[in-house]
Amino acid sequence: MARFPLALQGKRLPKCYTISATAVSMGQETNFTPATKPSDEVSSRKKVMVIGGDGYCGWATSLHLSNKNYEVAVVDNLVRRLFDHQLGLDSLTPISSIHNRVRRWKTLTGKDIQLYIGDICDFEFLAETFTSFKPDALVHFGEQRSAPYSMIDRSRAIFTQQNNVLGTLNVLFAIKEFREDCHLVKLGTMGEYGTPNIDIEEGYITITHNGRTDTLPFPKQASSFYHLSKVHDSHNIAFTCKAWGIRATDLNQGVVYGVRTDETAMHEELYNRLDYDGVFGTALNRFCVQAAVGHPLTVYGKGGQTRGYLDIRDTVQCVELAIANPAQRGEFRVFNQFTEQFSVNELAALVTRVGQKLGLEVQTISVPNPRVEAEEHYYNAKHTKLVELGLKPHLLSDSLLDSLLNFAIQYKDRVDSKQIMPNVSWKNIGVKTKTVTA
Amino acid sequence: MARFPLALQGKRLPKCYTISATAVSMGQETNFTPATKPSDEVSSRKKVMVIGGDGYCGWATSLHLSNKNYEVAVVDNLVRRLFDHQLGLDSLTPISSIHNRVRRWKTLTGKDIQLYIGDICDFEFLAETFTSFKPDALVHFGEQRSAPYSMIDRSRAIFTQQNNVLGTLNVLFAIKEFREDCHLVKLGTMGEYGTPNIDIEEGYITITHNGRTDTLPFPKQASSFYHLSKVHDSHNIAFTCKAWGIRATDLNQGVVYGVRTDETAMHEELYNRLDYDGVFGTALNRFCVQAAVGHPLTVYGKGGQTRGYLDIRDTVQCVELAIANPAQRGEFRVFNQFTEQFSVNELAALVTRVGQKLGLEVQTISVPNPRVEAEEHYYNAKHTKLVELGLKPHLLSDSLLDSLLNFAIQYKDRVDSKQIMPNVSWKNIGVKTKTVTA
Repeated sequence: MARFPLALQGKRLPKCYTISATAVSMGQETNFTPATKPSDEVSSRKKVMVIGGDGYCGWATSLHLSNKNYEVAVVDNLVRRLFDHQLGLDSLTPISSIHNRVRRWKTLTGKDIQLYIGDICDFEFLAETFTSFKPDALVHFGEQRSAPYSMIDRSRAIFTQQNNVLGTLNVLFAIKEFREDCHLVKLGTMGEYGTPNIDIEEGYITITHNGRTDTLPFPKQASSFYHLSKVHDSHNIAFTCKAWGIRATDLNQGVVYGVRTDETAMHEELYNRLDYDGVFGTALNRFCVQAAVGHPLTVYGKGGQTRGYLDIRDTVQCVELAIANPAQRGEFRVFNQFTEQFSVNELAALVTRVGQKLGLEVQTISVPNPRVEAEEHYYNAKHTKLVELGLKPHLLSDSLLDSLLNFAIQYKDRVDSKQIMPNVSWKNIGVKTKTVTA
Repeated sequence: MARFPLALQGKRLPKCYTISATAVSMGQETNFTPATKPSDEVSSRKKVMVIGGDGYCGWATSLHLSNKNYEVAVVDNLVRRLFDHQLGLDSLTPISSIHNRVRRWKTLTGKDIQLYIGDICDFEFLAETFTSFKPDALVHFGEQRSAPYSMIDRSRAIFTQQNNVLGTLNVLFAIKEFREDCHLVKLGTMGEYGTPNIDIEEGYITITHNGRTDTLPFPKQASSFYHLSKVHDSHNIAFTCKAWGIRATDLNQGVVYGVRTDETAMHEELYNRLDYDGVFGTALNRFCVQAAVGHPLTVYGKGGQTRGYLDIRDTVQCVELAIANPAQRGEFRVFNQFTEQFSVNELAALVTRVGQKLGLEVQTISVPNPRVEAEEHYYNAKHTKLVELGLKPHLLSDSLLDSLLNFAIQYKDRVDSKQIMPNVSWKNIGVKTKTVTA
């Protein structure tokens, strides 16, 4: 019981509640005495609200920003943890509760992270977070972020678009109503562009057609209900920038790999999640876990699918760069957030080579592609804007793969092999709700 | 009481219920004896479900298709009528209940229109309409269709995107699950394209960039939460055509004017609605009503806003052409559905000229533009595909304007002048729900 905020002990939780991590008892684990800071003492620090701050990218980002002396609030409804329970999945790495995470961070660094537990689709809750925290910038990771999850069944497809699109609309209304100068840093995805047969630009493309020229939003061809939800968000946000003067940066992120950042490495209770399952696991992370447990690497179809990738240490760096260099009022700025392009076959070859150095026997198999996507295609996406702002990429070197592989080996006893294979089909999605596993 | 289906008399309506208009008593108004047709007798007729079949375009389309010997079912939750009650608005023309409309149609023509009253966002209801009616084609008008309505307040913005986007997702799932060969004819809007400085093509544009060429979806720049909802629909539908083999036609319709079609003119109880208010009234219809009651024509801003327009008689013709020439399995076909382009100033000048011939004193005023939009811009949108299928446009001649103006004069005593001026501001939309009028 000592792990729960005293104020909540013995009480039924209301539907939406707000926990300020600075206000709860730290119990016996606390090294720092909780202090009530006068508000003017922190007034010069930039206040950043991280929606979805308990997730994979969100948690790493929250710690990084707190470490860089931003005043951070995490807003999260913790539904990502519920998905794991419902689908029988788990992170490879053991992860602490968000309450323990925040308390441990305070213990180690003396830094407070405010905690607001609730759903941004509930506007009353969201309004409360705005009026109490008063963010200068808002990083929005608070979306259902798995393409396969959105393709499990009708109800999860609907949930994904409802949660993501309407949640983001609420965020836009909250900024307009309560903090019109607040900079929205929104996580999009490179998947919004699909795989066109021309170079992918950063958000916009200048088109000359029948003798006239205009710069227009880059055409979108998303390939799951999840990716589509991000396309919808982008259009909604662009409109509010124009109509209301919202300032926004859309970070069209590639596939993130890795699990360690400087901050999460400080203590086991700060460890980040690492997903390797067929629903939430992404290509490179999944391959490393497969190699560690002796499971063949599962290449979907021909393996020529090429995407942009980045290290999670670059995710947190990019978000910080966006916050430190905000968009102008009325500007809808789009950055392609990745550092290198790889095909799935290239990733498999890389994991095989490094795995062999570590004495692992690595096999690769092609499995029927559960998705509907081109398996051989042109791909050349621009990604210079964040570099121009100062991004110093961590490239996918052998040493990094080595570290990720070692992490996988360290926790390989936690792997549930049944969760590795893809089990969500783009073509076979139906209207009946799947109740056991995906 | 005789006007209500007997089966419902004295009973509380369940949340979702289905009325088959062929099954209800026709009462004393009936000239034809209701007959139970053997199902094989009608098996050669194409079955068309019209979602939103009680609305402005939907009702005219339903009658037209029924008249052309399609077997028609209207699916509608009647929420458009509720909006009028809630906002204190009314159609210029008196309109009958959907039940009376359908009965009158049967009386006059002997033709049945099936009636399903319910909400397509309720998948259980939608599934029932599919399994009982078994549509060969589905015309989807069932969306909140007013840009100003979507900009009244946060809750109506959210409603618009939720109702439109998730309702359409349900339709796509229903087709996949129950009638995979059913042709979806979806109403989009020319407003999805915005006003780019290049020619607008029909759905797709071929782009040559850095020496490579691809044909991609035409970039979208919508300018209200309503228009955005249609952009979201287009992306969702395109994906399901590719992933599931859905066959779909997206009709990017311009601004519709007029009120008479051959079928609605047959009897007062078949009359179509005509909206002239600041929320649901569109430019030309509103100008005619303003001229009829001696209200100055209200040009928003500079009046250089140029859009595509079409007669409602061409709406019904276009939908029929799309149904008669269905898209292929997996094809996402986009037609720009309008016949002529006009600026707002050109429309005002036209109404002024024709009004003067009828002895009306027509003034024009510029009112502050409640929208955020370019008031002087290039506009050249292609619209050849429906013509190639056989569309014979009704152009906006003096005679037509004359007939619409005469209609307005006939019903001018029903005009509520308070509803004419724009009262929804794109910039001033807030989070507080507006409870009296917009």
